[in-house]
Amino acid sequence: MTTSRSRRWFLGLGTAWSAALVACRSKSAPPAAEPRALGVAVSPYGSRSRFERAARYVNTNTKVPLEEAVSRTPLHDTYGIITPSSLHFERHHSGVPDIDPATHTLTIHGLVDRPLVFTVDELKRLPSVSRIYFLECSGNGLTEWRGGEPDAQRIHGLTSCSEWTGVPVALLLRECAVRADATWMLAEGADACKMTRSIPMTKALDDALVAYGQNGEPLRPEQGYPMRLLLPGWEGNANVKWLRRIKVMDQPAMSREETSKYTDLMPDGTARQFTFIMEPKSLITRPSGGDRLAGAGMYEVTGLAWSGRGTIARVEITIDGGATWTPAELQAPVLPRAHTRFRWSWNWDGRDALIASRCTDDTGYTQPLLADLIKVRGVNSMYHNNGIQMWKVAADGTITNGNHA
Amino acid sequence: MTTSRSRRWFLGLGTAWSAALVACRSKSAPPAAEPRALGVAVSPYGSRSRFERAARYVNTNTKVPLEEAVSRTPLHDTYGIITPSSLHFERHHSGVPDIDPATHTLTIHGLVDRPLVFTVDELKRLPSVSRIYFLECSGNGLTEWRGGEPDAQRIHGLTSCSEWTGVPVALLLRECAVRADATWMLAEGADACKMTRSIPMTKALDDALVAYGQNGEPLRPEQGYPMRLLLPGWEGNANVKWLRRIKVMDQPAMSREETSKYTDLMPDGTARQFTFIMEPKSLITRPSGGDRLAGAGMYEVTGLAWSGRGTIARVEITIDGGATWTPAELQAPVLPRAHTRFRWSWNWDGRDALIASRCTDDTGYTQPLLADLIKVRGVNSMYHNNGIQMWKVAADGTITNGNHA
Repeated sequence: MTTSRSRRWFLGLGTAWSAALVACRSKSAPPAAEPRALGVAVSPYGSRSRFERAARYVNTNTKVPLEEAVSRTPLHDTYGIITPSSLHFERHHSGVPDIDPATHTLTIHGLVDRPLVFTVDELKRLPSVSRIYFLECSGNGLTEWRGGEPDAQRIHGLTSCSEWTGVPVALLLRECAVRADATWMLAEGADACKMTRSIPMTKALDDALVAYGQNGEPLRPEQGYPMRLLLPGWEGNANVKWLRRIKVMDQPAMSREETSKYTDLMPDGTARQFTFIMEPKSLITRPSGGDRLAGAGMYEVTGLAWSGRGTIARVEITIDGGATWTPAELQAPVLPRAHTRFRWSWNWDGRDALIASRCTDDTGYTQPLLADLIKVRGVNSMYHNNGIQMWKVAADGTITNGNHA
Repeated sequence: MTTSRSRRWFLGLGTAWSAALVACRSKSAPPAAEPRALGVAVSPYGSRSRFERAARYVNTNTKVPLEEAVSRTPLHDTYGIITPSSLHFERHHSGVPDIDPATHTLTIHGLVDRPLVFTVDELKRLPSVSRIYFLECSGNGLTEWRGGEPDAQRIHGLTSCSEWTGVPVALLLRECAVRADATWMLAEGADACKMTRSIPMTKALDDALVAYGQNGEPLRPEQGYPMRLLLPGWEGNANVKWLRRIKVMDQPAMSREETSKYTDLMPDGTARQFTFIMEPKSLITRPSGGDRLAGAGMYEVTGLAWSGRGTIARVEITIDGGATWTPAELQAPVLPRAHTRFRWSWNWDGRDALIASRCTDDTGYTQPLLADLIKVRGVNSMYHNNGIQMWKVAADGTITNGNHA
């Protein structure tokens, strides 16, 4: 097998997919060169190939880079359901603190009979659980209420999915002997702004975790190292990072982040408050805005669906802007409150198309058209856009945001 | 809440777990210091905290560091079922090649009607799947046949678990129109030694993948970037990394790695060959060798179980060296051919104990005692030790390897 024989290897394929490959194949590519040299040795802690460049999107067109404090997961360039920790989206309110776990503690006080302080080591000794959950900023997709960004990352990159490990909050509260009149708790971070959110006790006692592990290793600093609150399916902001204090209360604290921020301004001027749950949502990540199809033929259409209410039951695909829908395949495992990967094979006819996914969860809720969401919520909302994401495919193969097409 | 009041927060806990916390708590630790400064800004690609030091174990006591070419996952320090890609074990035969994906290709030839060459981009365009699978070197645990190492990492750190994404080999072979007389295929890597293994066509057409994704991003260089063979449940060595060629054949090639290596020398001098499947195995990762328990009381006992034959059905724990067994809790999701996390609460009475886990998979196979395994296989074997791992807990709390106690 030498490179001079390379043309012999480029024979036709026999199926619809074969045609696609012929279309995108470079006819002159030879088999790979023979390996000639020893590679590098083993290492204590690996890193990715120098040829890989996928990155969180950071808006550099700002005079206040720290206050901007948002970076977005490149959904188009990630596979499966696990988001690489290095590419998990970020949203900070006063930067990422540099915390020594040897000095960090979690204090639980307020309406409890036994206030307690836990060191990180003490917390890690307690019974723990690991669960795969998505985490989504309630501001994800906010650009689409009134305008539009060009690609999946910049529109929807404020969602990621990890295997989180931690101690059930219910166990900690039980140890502290929460009083009968407790209905809320205030969670406070150890960042400079002491980010605080009020959490209903019902959620705290249900599935909330104090998480210290992410994808098998300690939380990343951007995700709250050494510990964070993890509220499965609830808006990212309430999952307080760098968690240092839980105060058990009989009412919400009405902190800045649940009054002037993270409320949903409705058309009549009132605001929805404590809209914690992230509703069912999905999008096609590939192909998506910024891609260019090589020509008519077969393409794998894939994307992600998730629901803060439960488990994804169904994902459907449209290629005609929502007039007709056809089921996509859900890839196992399909887990509650986790990203779910869907796949569908598309034989593109080479003509204009408006493609999208929509999901339905096991409560029966179906993701709405963006236009229908706007009819109810108006365009003053910043948060909780779970509308269907349209991608416009032009005859030349270019793909753009189709939400306002 | 000021530090001067800190002692007030250290009140007693009310349950068995509370006693454990009192035992391990530093009585003088105050609540964490108040945050005072802004943190750092967002970043394109994150890394772990500077306070974290978990590392793959590399034997540095060697004159041939490249040929040593083994590093082991710190199982004791990982959580959940996903192994961080940076800590996935390594086993190389001529180092880690530095491959530019723009020039790498996969050639499929031999007993096929349509030999083909795929570029990386062509491969990524095809229908793909993502699955969470363990990968274990068949030499994992080899130290225990005749001697013993002190901790979980050095004994059993040659197993890891990732979400792999790739194209089914069956799809590629179908495109190449494999001939009816094909029964094996030779897989060849692009490392300097051109690592080659013969794989039965039955496995190739079942669940084998050409994988290009690992935990949501491209394969790490140590794991075969830009593409590798992935044979769910089969010994690591057969999962050829840096895959460059598949030759379809009607017999195995009898390469070095399936004759002089990766065969199991039996007591009668014959060798078992093509023992691909990794049998059911488990171990307690925490507490384990090298830990020191702080005193009698409650401890969470946790570990991993997996089976190359299918799905873990049951894990049991012994604290008396195997005389009696009690069920552990399996943590969802329990996936086929994936690490499965188990947990069990142990109220240690402070006396000598010999603790271990044993697993049973959905085929009914139960992990054997190491002594029983040796009765059949002798001690010439290097590979396929799936015997039960005993940990010896001394009255002073120190934990050592109990396999040869």
